[in-house]
Amino acid sequence: MTARLLGEGLGTLLLLATVIGSGIMGGTLSGGNVAIALLGNTVATGAVLVVLITMLGPISGAHFNPAVTLVMLMAREISVREAVLYVLVQVFAAVAGVWLAHAMFDLDIWQVSEKVRSGGGQWLSETVATFGLVTTILLTRRFRPDHVAVSVGLYITAAYWFTASTSFANPAVTLARSVSNTFAGIRPGDVAPFVAAQLLGMLLAWIVVRALLDSVSEKS
Amino acid sequence: MTARLLGEGLGTLLLLATVIGSGIMGGTLSGGNVAIALLGNTVATGAVLVVLITMLGPISGAHFNPAVTLVMLMAREISVREAVLYVLVQVFAAVAGVWLAHAMFDLDIWQVSEKVRSGGGQWLSETVATFGLVTTILLTRRFRPDHVAVSVGLYITAAYWFTASTSFANPAVTLARSVSNTFAGIRPGDVAPFVAAQLLGMLLAWIVVRALLDSVSEKS
Amino acid sequence: MTARLLGEGLGTLLLLATVIGSGIMGGTLSGGNVAIALLGNTVATGAVLVVLITMLGPISGAHFNPAVTLVMLMAREISVREAVLYVLVQVFAAVAGVWLAHAMFDLDIWQVSEKVRSGGGQWLSETVATFGLVTTILLTRRFRPDHVAVSVGLYITAAYWFTASTSFANPAVTLARSVSNTFAGIRPGDVAPFVAAQLLGMLLAWIVVRALLDSVSEKS
Amino acid sequence: MTARLLGEGLGTLLLLATVIGSGIMGGTLSGGNVAIALLGNTVATGAVLVVLITMLGPISGAHFNPAVTLVMLMAREISVREAVLYVLVQVFAAVAGVWLAHAMFDLDIWQVSEKVRSGGGQWLSETVATFGLVTTILLTRRFRPDHVAVSVGLYITAAYWFTASTSFANPAVTLARSVSNTFAGIRPGDVAPFVAAQLLGMLLAWIVVRALLDSVSEKS
Repeated sequence: MTARLLGEGLGTLLLLATVIGSGIMGGTLSGGNVAIALLGNTVATGAVLVVLITMLGPISGAHFNPAVTLVMLMAREISVREAVLYVLVQVFAAVAGVWLAHAMFDLDIWQVSEKVRSGGGQWLSETVATFGLVTTILLTRRFRPDHVAVSVGLYITAAYWFTASTSFANPAVTLARSVSNTFAGIRPGDVAPFVAAQLLGMLLAWIVVRALLDSVSEKS
Repeated sequence: MTARLLGEGLGTLLLLATVIGSGIMGGTLSGGNVAIALLGNTVATGAVLVVLITMLGPISGAHFNPAVTLVMLMAREISVREAVLYVLVQVFAAVAGVWLAHAMFDLDIWQVSEKVRSGGGQWLSETVATFGLVTTILLTRRFRPDHVAVSVGLYITAAYWFTASTSFANPAVTLARSVSNTFAGIRPGDVAPFVAAQLLGMLLAWIVVRALLDSVSEKS
Repeated sequence: MTARLLGEGLGTLLLLATVIGSGIMGGTLSGGNVAIALLGNTVATGAVLVVLITMLGPISGAHFNPAVTLVMLMAREISVREAVLYVLVQVFAAVAGVWLAHAMFDLDIWQVSEKVRSGGGQWLSETVATFGLVTTILLTRRFRPDHVAVSVGLYITAAYWFTASTSFANPAVTLARSVSNTFAGIRPGDVAPFVAAQLLGMLLAWIVVRALLDSVSEKS
Repeated sequence: MTARLLGEGLGTLLLLATVIGSGIMGGTLSGGNVAIALLGNTVATGAVLVVLITMLGPISGAHFNPAVTLVMLMAREISVREAVLYVLVQVFAAVAGVWLAHAMFDLDIWQVSEKVRSGGGQWLSETVATFGLVTTILLTRRFRPDHVAVSVGLYITAAYWFTASTSFANPAVTLARSVSNTFAGIRPGDVAPFVAAQLLGMLLAWIVVRALLDSVSEKS
């Protein structure tokens, strides 16, 4: 259990350091062209997800995301106690990752985001983003278990661009981003509806994937 | 059959949400630099194709494209009835994906594109684009079946840039793009010649690949 | 033999259509920012190389490049007659690919490049570029034959940026680019020293790889 | 031993030619938009790392980095004598790679960087960057040995963006960059603290990975 929690914490910390750090780098260097900043943010996040899931998957399962942990609990792949510990570690490590990024870029460690991310389009985006992420994980691990790391990295690469919210798709990431007043931040007051939208997307994915896999197994 | 149609619909919906959504994102953020918008559009579309074909290939074959379904019918891999249902699902899911993208970006759901895409160069581009796509699928599934998802994603990545039309290469995608007056749209009146050019490209690919594989098997 | 020549021609044609077409697209859309144009050119060329080598490798070996054909002749993997036919097909298909790109972009088919690419730095670049390409092919096919397609695509992706000439690294590509007065062109008078530099790079790669593999086999 | 040193030298030389060369290319073409320059620099470096580790891994282990050689010495995978020779070859080949890049771009061969890279954020960045790199290598080679090349390439792709220093993460690279007054340079006086920070990151990775692997093996 220690190794699993350590792995989960290490991965979530490096994930958030990347999300926030590459956002700061892009925002600083791009001279106001947000598309270029987002491109750097996208490439870095997609790449690090493949790396982290490849190396920590064998240790902790590489959730790094309470929505994923919850769906694994629903699939009875982990116990309630493990799930609670996973989520706690994810949240603390995510915040630590944000702080690490701030420290690397010589910014104040403690920040509160002022970036408004609200409204129907944003919430729909988070539901779609998380639906797609969880569907990708559940179907890929069933049919092509070796491709999960690459698929998750590429999915987030796409989702940063095809959703209006740039796809947080992760309650721990959302919470942690609220303590960074940089490119990738979100105002604390906007966190709760984002998380609700994400959990809804996760539930939808669970239902759709079950329907899909039930029809497949009926056939065979 | 239900699972296959559901898979085909889910994949086509997410594909179009990505094509349209990332086009909107790029067009909005890039400050008028169309090359950067196209870069974001390209990266998102290529990435999502790899993800969707990897996870839905084992369920539906992951056509997402009437031109691909037709060539599979010609190869007698699916029945006429299946092909008709596939194409219907692809068209409806593609339109639904466009609408989902509009909703995520808080745009009017119902739109009609005004973007002119016409002329000999555009039509030749669509024939070449679809020829290349179908050739890639037919040859790769024959010799390297595990590489189809990655090859299709990378092929479209290249084709967005090397054809003057940015490679629609898919009749359902073409039709659905006509109901989006955004970056990736096409005027309804320009749809029919695009589809005709695509079907011609598909037929050429079928002929060339058969010639190629016949010579290969004669040798051995 | 027919299948091999057909495969070699098809691949070289699509490779050049991509190199020239994506160059035109980048040059047109990027509003004068050459770095963005080169980024599009790079992504398209790298991606299509992976696709073409994956699907045509099993048919023709997927040389698409007289320097590669020559080194395969030196390795006695093909006969002199085959090598001559390969090179002829590569040159004609490369020119046809350039013309196809011009037609897709509604440009004059027949063009002559006026782009000066000359001087010691450019020639050294071509020697280094071709040295790296041939070394990559020879070592990867020896130790990791399944990775050749991806490695060649990634190598050219890097080489477009780390050499001053943007890495032609291919005599057929160099010749064909001279008949395109677009982003990726080269003045006809500058072709011969480029080809000479490329062949020198190929020879150096042959010598270095032999030395490397001889020491490895002595050890074991 | 000759083959191993030759492989290590060849790889380090091409790595530095890429780091410096693509930095010059990006800096020259991007018209002052540093984010675009960094994007080209990133894509080229990440791509060439995958290529070099794939093709030279079977020969030399493909360290190209004294911090990696040192951690392999600590893991008792190479002898002290080998480690000393590896580091010497890496340093000389890295400098030669810088000079090769200068020659390709028709710049003065001999340069001294004037680029200031100093301060707590930069040093923390180098510790984090090297910690992540060494952790990636140690965990991936343990659980997924076939994925090391891709993981290292993707890790550096991310790290160029998420650290304030753009991740040198390599003492030989750091030293060699000090003799290039171009995009990727570093003032000679700033080299020593960078190297110290890198070695600290390597040690932290060694400790964390051991703790992680010990807990894993206790469980089983």
